[in-house]
Amino acid sequence: MKAALMERGRIWVDDVPDPVPGPGEVLVKTRACGICGSDLHAAKHTDDFVATSREAGGAFKLTTFAPVVLGHEFCAEVVDYGPDTRRAIDRGSLVCSVPMLLRAEPIGIGYSEVAPGGFGEYMVLSESLTVPVPAGTPFEHAALTEPMAVGYHAVVKAQLTGDEAVLVLGCGPVGLAVLIALRQAGFDDVSAADFSPGRRALALRVGAAQAIDPRQSSPFAALPSASHGKRRTTVIFECVGVPGMIDRIFLGAPADARIVVVGVCLERDTSRPLIAINKELNVQYVLGYTVEEFAHALQCIADGTFDVAPLITGRVGLSGVAAAFNALADPEQHAKVLVEPSL
Amino acid sequence: MKAALMERGRIWVDDVPDPVPGPGEVLVKTRACGICGSDLHAAKHTDDFVATSREAGGAFKLTTFAPVVLGHEFCAEVVDYGPDTRRAIDRGSLVCSVPMLLRAEPIGIGYSEVAPGGFGEYMVLSESLTVPVPAGTPFEHAALTEPMAVGYHAVVKAQLTGDEAVLVLGCGPVGLAVLIALRQAGFDDVSAADFSPGRRALALRVGAAQAIDPRQSSPFAALPSASHGKRRTTVIFECVGVPGMIDRIFLGAPADARIVVVGVCLERDTSRPLIAINKELNVQYVLGYTVEEFAHALQCIADGTFDVAPLITGRVGLSGVAAAFNALADPEQHAKVLVEPSL
Repeated sequence: MKAALMERGRIWVDDVPDPVPGPGEVLVKTRACGICGSDLHAAKHTDDFVATSREAGGAFKLTTFAPVVLGHEFCAEVVDYGPDTRRAIDRGSLVCSVPMLLRAEPIGIGYSEVAPGGFGEYMVLSESLTVPVPAGTPFEHAALTEPMAVGYHAVVKAQLTGDEAVLVLGCGPVGLAVLIALRQAGFDDVSAADFSPGRRALALRVGAAQAIDPRQSSPFAALPSASHGKRRTTVIFECVGVPGMIDRIFLGAPADARIVVVGVCLERDTSRPLIAINKELNVQYVLGYTVEEFAHALQCIADGTFDVAPLITGRVGLSGVAAAFNALADPEQHAKVLVEPSL
Repeated sequence: MKAALMERGRIWVDDVPDPVPGPGEVLVKTRACGICGSDLHAAKHTDDFVATSREAGGAFKLTTFAPVVLGHEFCAEVVDYGPDTRRAIDRGSLVCSVPMLLRAEPIGIGYSEVAPGGFGEYMVLSESLTVPVPAGTPFEHAALTEPMAVGYHAVVKAQLTGDEAVLVLGCGPVGLAVLIALRQAGFDDVSAADFSPGRRALALRVGAAQAIDPRQSSPFAALPSASHGKRRTTVIFECVGVPGMIDRIFLGAPADARIVVVGVCLERDTSRPLIAINKELNVQYVLGYTVEEFAHALQCIADGTFDVAPLITGRVGLSGVAAAFNALADPEQHAKVLVEPSL
């Protein structure tokens, strides 16, 4: 099959062997696969990413320096079945899946030589993890299931009661997914912040009550430090994921704030614990989602509760992957770019 | 009065003006005042401490480079009253107090030129914050109220249900206070870890079920990663407060662990968020205690629930403060040293 390969940042299209479904696995044809910030990180900081992934364990990892077919935010079409499959989903049907292959050791799809991801024509998926895409749902929207599950999971982990003052820092795809999930959870007074005018416009479009330019005013100034005697808890979603963000939040956050770290900072990060200690801050690091949250995200996309259409800013074929990785460095130009191997 | 002064790490005894109680304040004679790790930090890293305190705000701070009389863990005797006082506590009675002077701006006692602390013969306290020491309680024990309140508060903030696997890293005075508070909360299966044999012995004495030498085995290996199918939540109390500890805990902690940061790291700290993200760790930074928790700690010391006697490893007069600051660098030699100006 044709696939876009990535090796230490270099990206090129090549012929690679078709993946072969093993027991309990299905062969699928990629319809659309989003480019994730983690893919950009994996390409730009391969050494750090691999070193830290190897040390950290966990599902979210690139543990090889060999060429890989990236892509873990996909919607695909069932084309064949491996041995020992139930075949409950017909050939030609659209499916999504948690990007994980359930072999002896679980393997991250799109981060391993043996489990090529969605930047190739075909993938194999674990049948038990495939979720059928409800009829009438565009495959481009269904491809947003994975990042929406990330945003939804972060909101679930935040354990909100409905009374919190909420601030979302960073309005890239992760921040936008969090905003969409917050809106569904009934939060209609959320502040968002991003340096990019384009992303601030998107934040307002998906449900932020206000979108702050940090160059103009501090996002933290928007938070009620005390409201009529009774202090509201502040919850800050960190959706930027660059070194220094956590320290800046420590400085800006009001006392007793809860910080939900959704942005994946792949580098070493430096902060001043004394500042967090002085304010008794709480930091919840989050990653991924459960299988149930993933299915919920797809259902919400299908029924329109999660309106993901505004996030899709570009569509490219395999030959456009390398250029899209570069273009995504410019926040004005793009939020989510979908790779569609058939283009 | 005589007092031990500290200026950028230099410590000497000198005559300073007697403090004068203002409205709502009482004059007290220091009976005993513990040397806190934060005092050692303030002396050793004055520049960093002041810079970060100024930026951080909050109660816990040294914001001046001028000479100060340190000491905020005290038991004292009421000797006189300022204007507008209720005088409910008789002259000669022992009191403890949250180390805070409630003036127009609250002032940290023992961290300010205008509010000398317990390493001097006299202090002024806000009458409304003084708590009488129950009859029969040795003043040396009552002087441990402040650090015990820190340990008790950390256990309260951890929101334990009783089912958690608990690990205490660092068995200096803070770790020992946490262990004592955990024991009172009914935790009789707590693991503790410290490089020092003396401190491990103290940990066992105040209630740890096991005391691990990290040179011999990983403290994290003592944690049950999964117990009979149902995973117990792990709660790790970080009571060391040196750079790098949080990153080491990120590496060693099991998934979903909660980390309570009680050790005050006054320097910049570097960690790898990706590791915390992979495990969805939660970090709760804690500081201090409420007035109620402080009073509770004193009551528990008085009734013997908090057995603090083992923590007291030395008593010095004012002329011994400088040497005690040096001696405290050796964990074999000391846990808590009390300064008693009358010695």
